Amino acid sequence: MIQFYAPDIKETLQLPESDSAHCCRVLRMKEGDEIFVVDGKGKRYRCVIVEAHPRHTAIEIVAEEELPSHWDYKITLAVAPTKNLDRMEWLLEKIVEIGVDRVVLLKCEHSERKVVKTERLEKIMVSAMKQSLKGFLPVLSEVIPFKDFVKSEEGAGCQRVLGYCSDTYPRREFASTYVRGEDVVIMIGPEGDFSPEEVEMAVEAGFIPVTFGESRLRTETAALFGVTATHVLNQLK
Amino acid sequence: MIQFYAPDIKETLQLPESDSAHCCRVLRMKEGDEIFVVDGKGKRYRCVIVEAHPRHTAIEIVAEEELPSHWDYKITLAVAPTKNLDRMEWLLEKIVEIGVDRVVLLKCEHSERKVVKTERLEKIMVSAMKQSLKGFLPVLSEVIPFKDFVKSEEGAGCQRVLGYCSDTYPRREFASTYVRGEDVVIMIGPEGDFSPEEVEMAVEAGFIPVTFGESRLRTETAALFGVTATHVLNQLK
Repeated sequence: MIQFYAPDIKETLQLPESDSAHCCRVLRMKEGDEIFVVDGKGKRYRCVIVEAHPRHTAIEIVAEEELPSHWDYKITLAVAPTKNLDRMEWLLEKIVEIGVDRVVLLKCEHSERKVVKTERLEKIMVSAMKQSLKGFLPVLSEVIPFKDFVKSEEGAGCQRVLGYCSDTYPRREFASTYVRGEDVVIMIGPEGDFSPEEVEMAVEAGFIPVTFGESRLRTETAALFGVTATHVLNQLK
Repeated sequence: MIQFYAPDIKETLQLPESDSAHCCRVLRMKEGDEIFVVDGKGKRYRCVIVEAHPRHTAIEIVAEEELPSHWDYKITLAVAPTKNLDRMEWLLEKIVEIGVDRVVLLKCEHSERKVVKTERLEKIMVSAMKQSLKGFLPVLSEVIPFKDFVKSEEGAGCQRVLGYCSDTYPRREFASTYVRGEDVVIMIGPEGDFSPEEVEMAVEAGFIPVTFGESRLRTETAALFGVTATHVLNQLK
């Protein structure tokens, strides 16, 4: 099954340009063909093509279904973008496949990359959502300063953890710290790790310093591990 | 800390060409400088450079330490190489970082890629081992036919699971199937999934069909999920 993405399909009754091209040029679909379109907000529409236009394919909605989310806890990943953007791109592809609700890009004291164009990352998230047959597109925020994010999460009713390398603060193992079923915010630092001041600030704001095991993981690997671990722990009967 | 890799350091007392170049050309290290060298078999040597030669740097061993493995269960990942080799390359980088003992490349009925040059994959595994400060280099096998691998594992005293997409056989959730502390063999099929005959053959040989959750995962994502999940479950106190 192939899914197309059109956030406003119900209003426009058209596929956006990129999806129109994919539908009509690449897949050679024609008037009368049936396609599935998701809106990224949890709805999937069964549609029939009424005009196979390569830039604005017009459709008619035949049926509409609410797609269930595969998990009933919210995962927020707040990560400092890596110097090498490829590593962020595959991280986003993977966590959308595996399942994440919100991605926040952090600007930390030791960040080597302080600016990120999010359009390309958005595109990668959209195609990962389509490919993994999901109906929800996770929220991706622009880069925000570490301090502002920590403040914004202060007093949030969910679990908040801080994955970092140095052991200036005692760290708990994430696996035995996360309480199943609860929403979680996972913060992962840059290649140069969080600064001592940042760790202190986060701990004061209620973040728990955690480790994902003995292995030294790259930024993107730690981020992926945290998201995967949350699902694995919730899958336990 | 920077680790160099020289499988036979104790005999040769030299860094191989690539590591010599990195040591002397890139890092500009000189006679008398101290470096760490791992042999990929669990030993790390503290060495002093006696000749900073860019092709065969000579060293003297000052101290030798046994590096503990971070996990006491063996993980074998048997995976059908993806059509796009980049996906295999990052998979290997990630599982070496996270921790794996053996990687087997499978040739399945639906494999789009039946040949893989392993030299480049080996190189990626070596640098991931160095980067994540490990002392063990996982074993990487050449591509072998699915049937031969399943036969070779028959009667193996460890848990063997088969991650696949279709549900011709009832599948258990890996998280509640894996018995902590035990060695595990995780088989992941190609983009086109295992064929019904392959699934039947594996089940008859004692492999348990498992799922890693509701999300549809790409081959390399499922493989990474399986390896990560094994560590997460073993980290539970």
